[in-house]
Amino acid sequence: MKARVSIIMGSTSDLPIMEKAAKVLNEFKVPFEIQALSAHRTPKEVEEFACGAAERGIEVIIAGAGMAAHLPGVIAASATVPVIGVPISATFKGMDALLAIVQMPPGIPVATVGVDAAMNAGLLALQMLAVGDERIRKELVEYKVNLKNKIVKANKELAEVKYEYKVN
Amino acid sequence: MKARVSIIMGSTSDLPIMEKAAKVLNEFKVPFEIQALSAHRTPKEVEEFACGAAERGIEVIIAGAGMAAHLPGVIAASATVPVIGVPISATFKGMDALLAIVQMPPGIPVATVGVDAAMNAGLLALQMLAVGDERIRKELVEYKVNLKNKIVKANKELAEVKYEYKVN
Amino acid sequence: MKARVSIIMGSTSDLPIMEKAAKVLNEFKVPFEIQALSAHRTPKEVEEFACGAAERGIEVIIAGAGMAAHLPGVIAASATVPVIGVPISATFKGMDALLAIVQMPPGIPVATVGVDAAMNAGLLALQMLAVGDERIRKELVEYKVNLKNKIVKANKELAEVKYEYKVN
Amino acid sequence: MKARVSIIMGSTSDLPIMEKAAKVLNEFKVPFEIQALSAHRTPKEVEEFACGAAERGIEVIIAGAGMAAHLPGVIAASATVPVIGVPISATFKGMDALLAIVQMPPGIPVATVGVDAAMNAGLLALQMLAVGDERIRKELVEYKVNLKNKIVKANKELAEVKYEYKVN
Amino acid sequence: MKARVSIIMGSTSDLPIMEKAAKVLNEFKVPFEIQALSAHRTPKEVEEFACGAAERGIEVIIAGAGMAAHLPGVIAASATVPVIGVPISATFKGMDALLAIVQMPPGIPVATVGVDAAMNAGLLALQMLAVGDERIRKELVEYKVNLKNKIVKANKELAEVKYEYKVN
Amino acid sequence: MKARVSIIMGSTSDLPIMEKAAKVLNEFKVPFEIQALSAHRTPKEVEEFACGAAERGIEVIIAGAGMAAHLPGVIAASATVPVIGVPISATFKGMDALLAIVQMPPGIPVATVGVDAAMNAGLLALQMLAVGDERIRKELVEYKVNLKNKIVKANKELAEVKYEYKVN
Amino acid sequence: MKARVSIIMGSTSDLPIMEKAAKVLNEFKVPFEIQALSAHRTPKEVEEFACGAAERGIEVIIAGAGMAAHLPGVIAASATVPVIGVPISATFKGMDALLAIVQMPPGIPVATVGVDAAMNAGLLALQMLAVGDERIRKELVEYKVNLKNKIVKANKELAEVKYEYKVN
Amino acid sequence: MKARVSIIMGSTSDLPIMEKAAKVLNEFKVPFEIQALSAHRTPKEVEEFACGAAERGIEVIIAGAGMAAHLPGVIAASATVPVIGVPISATFKGMDALLAIVQMPPGIPVATVGVDAAMNAGLLALQMLAVGDERIRKELVEYKVNLKNKIVKANKELAEVKYEYKVN
Repeated sequence: MKARVSIIMGSTSDLPIMEKAAKVLNEFKVPFEIQALSAHRTPKEVEEFACGAAERGIEVIIAGAGMAAHLPGVIAASATVPVIGVPISATFKGMDALLAIVQMPPGIPVATVGVDAAMNAGLLALQMLAVGDERIRKELVEYKVNLKNKIVKANKELAEVKYEYKVN
Repeated sequence: MKARVSIIMGSTSDLPIMEKAAKVLNEFKVPFEIQALSAHRTPKEVEEFACGAAERGIEVIIAGAGMAAHLPGVIAASATVPVIGVPISATFKGMDALLAIVQMPPGIPVATVGVDAAMNAGLLALQMLAVGDERIRKELVEYKVNLKNKIVKANKELAEVKYEYKVN
Repeated sequence: MKARVSIIMGSTSDLPIMEKAAKVLNEFKVPFEIQALSAHRTPKEVEEFACGAAERGIEVIIAGAGMAAHLPGVIAASATVPVIGVPISATFKGMDALLAIVQMPPGIPVATVGVDAAMNAGLLALQMLAVGDERIRKELVEYKVNLKNKIVKANKELAEVKYEYKVN
Repeated sequence: MKARVSIIMGSTSDLPIMEKAAKVLNEFKVPFEIQALSAHRTPKEVEEFACGAAERGIEVIIAGAGMAAHLPGVIAASATVPVIGVPISATFKGMDALLAIVQMPPGIPVATVGVDAAMNAGLLALQMLAVGDERIRKELVEYKVNLKNKIVKANKELAEVKYEYKVN
Repeated sequence: MKARVSIIMGSTSDLPIMEKAAKVLNEFKVPFEIQALSAHRTPKEVEEFACGAAERGIEVIIAGAGMAAHLPGVIAASATVPVIGVPISATFKGMDALLAIVQMPPGIPVATVGVDAAMNAGLLALQMLAVGDERIRKELVEYKVNLKNKIVKANKELAEVKYEYKVN
Repeated sequence: MKARVSIIMGSTSDLPIMEKAAKVLNEFKVPFEIQALSAHRTPKEVEEFACGAAERGIEVIIAGAGMAAHLPGVIAASATVPVIGVPISATFKGMDALLAIVQMPPGIPVATVGVDAAMNAGLLALQMLAVGDERIRKELVEYKVNLKNKIVKANKELAEVKYEYKVN
Repeated sequence: MKARVSIIMGSTSDLPIMEKAAKVLNEFKVPFEIQALSAHRTPKEVEEFACGAAERGIEVIIAGAGMAAHLPGVIAASATVPVIGVPISATFKGMDALLAIVQMPPGIPVATVGVDAAMNAGLLALQMLAVGDERIRKELVEYKVNLKNKIVKANKELAEVKYEYKVN
Repeated sequence: MKARVSIIMGSTSDLPIMEKAAKVLNEFKVPFEIQALSAHRTPKEVEEFACGAAERGIEVIIAGAGMAAHLPGVIAASATVPVIGVPISATFKGMDALLAIVQMPPGIPVATVGVDAAMNAGLLALQMLAVGDERIRKELVEYKVNLKNKIVKANKELAEVKYEYKVN
């Protein structure tokens, strides 16, 4: 089994957020790797990782970081596969991390998701893989049906809220 | 009894906020419906709802959503009745939801109220119905009198705060 | 001819923005009045206006103001008809006006539209009147069809943009 | 004993903040009054209060409000004495209240203090009264000396923090 | 003739803003002085100025500054008369200056006005002087009447805006 | 020739920004289509487009929108291919569009790029296609080499800047 | 033992943040002093301190302050050694302090670190001392190696997170 | 002549800002080098530069960058000399660059100056060099005297502003 997606985080304190990406990949049976690498503490290791990822078979990288979040951009500078950035909230509710990830210069995009939205990062990675993977594509369609079904269940809950002038 | 106002929320987790709209409509004896519909998880159901609301007798729609809050705007795109949008606070204290609701393009207005201000959304719906409904109009005038009376009561509380140099 | 909608602005310097509301009302043949009244310079006139509006036949009020924009909220405090607030941009690109209009306390809603979005304010007023006015309702439906047709025309423009690898 | 300063708040929920202004006035033995008045719930009472304040002997008004905080500005519109505004924090950490109070239009200033800074509002009122009141002026000078003495005490605390390479 | 108000600015580049304060004081025939002093370039001169102001007969100080605007707060630290702060817009549209002026610590208030609102600073100074000056008080009442008259004139302008469905 | 990438914009006024995505796709010889579709003016057409895109062979969608930018999220709700969102600057320098695009709810990601960064959106689409397309992958590697060469040229420019104490 | 670094804070309530600077200096065996001085409560003491620091052998000053944080800038105005500013979070999550410290006027720089980042302030002081101090320079290089080793340890933790499709 | 300070910018478009640092170093006769290096386009060159700077005799690095400004932080990750970061304004008036530079993680400080404040970056570099360089220290003291003298000149300008009630 060879990893197709690589999940990177700047510090293990980001694990409670970033493991949501791991869980969604696991649920879709897509092999992945997960490790901590810091743009600031292990710059050489980050660059080696980014330059070698494609050759090792990695097709998408998910990188999460907080504050002056350089990790996704620094990986995108050297990697040739798409990089998904997850801004992690800290001081300014994640606004610092969001701007430090999304506002990349021309030539080096990072596919940014919402603050702390690692699950969506996992799903976006799956959508990218689905371009050439029929099985994942089908499961993503089913996943959307399930999202809809949760709303049906939600409405059953709402039906139990009673008011005299409520008519449904 | 046919619903005149429809309260929509993107997720039942928004119920503690959105039920304040339900309560004020109930208090004014205006029949309403309440359901969960998501611009992102059930887009077709949202469109059907929005296109059919007027015909079913709905006169005003109240839609609450958080984060990249598309629900009120998406409903306003298809509905022909006025849509009131309630930004619900999450990551950025509701600033993301507020901007995603209020900054609508020319031609498709959403009547936006304050962050988490579902009670005010209910009152605004009542003011709209009152244009052609004498009973509601009168009760809204009484409601304003009651707001004033709460201040009178508040001043009684303040009168009990004692300082040597306080003269009232 | 009696005005059904009243357009209020804090200063005639707001006219280039606020006349977009006038134009859309005029286009829909809805009689309206337009005047300058300031929450800070003419507080008594504002209160008299707000208290007497319903009696004079005004069904909706549109109020535009910039900076610490108190006008819509102060009118809503005394009026019994719905008040639409238009934040007008100045120092902080309208963020000050937006927050000063939309963040109303419980009991006194203002239906807020986007920054400088007076045309949308006019349309929202029309949607409110349409609740009890068949003609306006029909014309609003037609208006939506026209919005769609502009997109059709836009696509014709886009068809003229030529690139070797463009396929439509 | 006649009140020289009037403390106004929009709601008794603001009392824990606004009573800091009361305490500092009491400490300086300046007679004051304190009451709840709402720009939105009791607009007529606010205007009567503002128009009559000077005549009743009020020399400075302190007004605290949160969210779309109109109270200080609305009072300043009608009053002829200086008005001090206290932004009270709620949804956006007080940014909405700060902008709604400080960004007044030309001609109607409000002397704004920091978010929740009612104690500073009280001191500012005292500085204004001190212009014509020798006793208050002297006590304010002493007050500044006491502020300095607190720093002396603080340094004694810091002297107890021990590190091997700490030299003071 | 002895100055009653002192206008201070950090740099003569602030003069186009700060001279609005000078003009309003001149209009009310209140003697004032105006000078440039920088919290950062001439800290000793600022402190000497602040400590000596009251003794020289200065009753109110108006201080304008931009960016990390320390001037009003630094003067307030040493002065015993009220200090009015004018945030001057630069990089962040004056938000940096506004926060650096208004968010003073307990014990050292600055009476902050809106961004670039030097005219309002002048009027606020006049309101403070009016506490003990009958002439100024009367002229301020007249000033308010004039503000109102400008609105009357504005409405004449608006009366000339013609639309078929405009009724006033 | 069948389009592999679809570029969508809410209004032709966004063309000067969005055509940067078209240009980069054209440069890499990837067939694409470009059209205007509005989440608010043509909601049905948007949904039809989004539901049918995969079947027509579209592998990635690039959607640009400003203000309360719902277009990318609304397409992502119905599409099964990855959606890249481009926030387009208007009132709040694109902050409204950025938040309305990036802060998507769990289950419906949008791959967001920087404000007005349509060229980066084009490159991100190419990176996604490159997962299964050897030619594009190679050209992207060359593209990175060219980015580096521009810096070499930039340094030649800098070498011409002369100062006495400049040593390179 | 003579202090080489001086740590200043506006209030002892800032000690839990500022002692992180003390700890890192202590760890590197660099003698330091620590005291409370307020730009607003003890302006004369601050100026005396700033003017005399270089002569007493102080080579770097670290100053932490919150809200309208004037302390670092006021010290930088009079000191001739580099001043490091630490914005301390309060009302606006430290944004007010950050802007009040970093946005200094031309001629008077403050070396600003992140919000509450006193440890980084200590390290920055050490980097400045290291320019002329071989021992500190070597220990800083070792310190960087240790930062990297923490990542190695972090990866061991991550290796213990188990998922069926996790491959490392 | 060997460079003591290295000025780095991400793109030559930043030269009009960054040359202010060069000018101030030149004025103080401190040898410096200046070049363009991009954290995103030339990551290897940046790392080589950062790792080798100290050995080549560089004592301070000044790095300017805009948007998601990673350059200063990435250099600080590998360099052992102090790094001064200059946020350069673009989309969000430099707020994105400021947060991306100042909010560094523990262990890797960047000495951040104001937005576009390259001249202050040059002065801060000089203050750091002055720790071990008597000549620079003396010239910095003179520089402060000159800053003060500009204020004296400014006051002469102000003396020419004439109003009837202006007394200085």
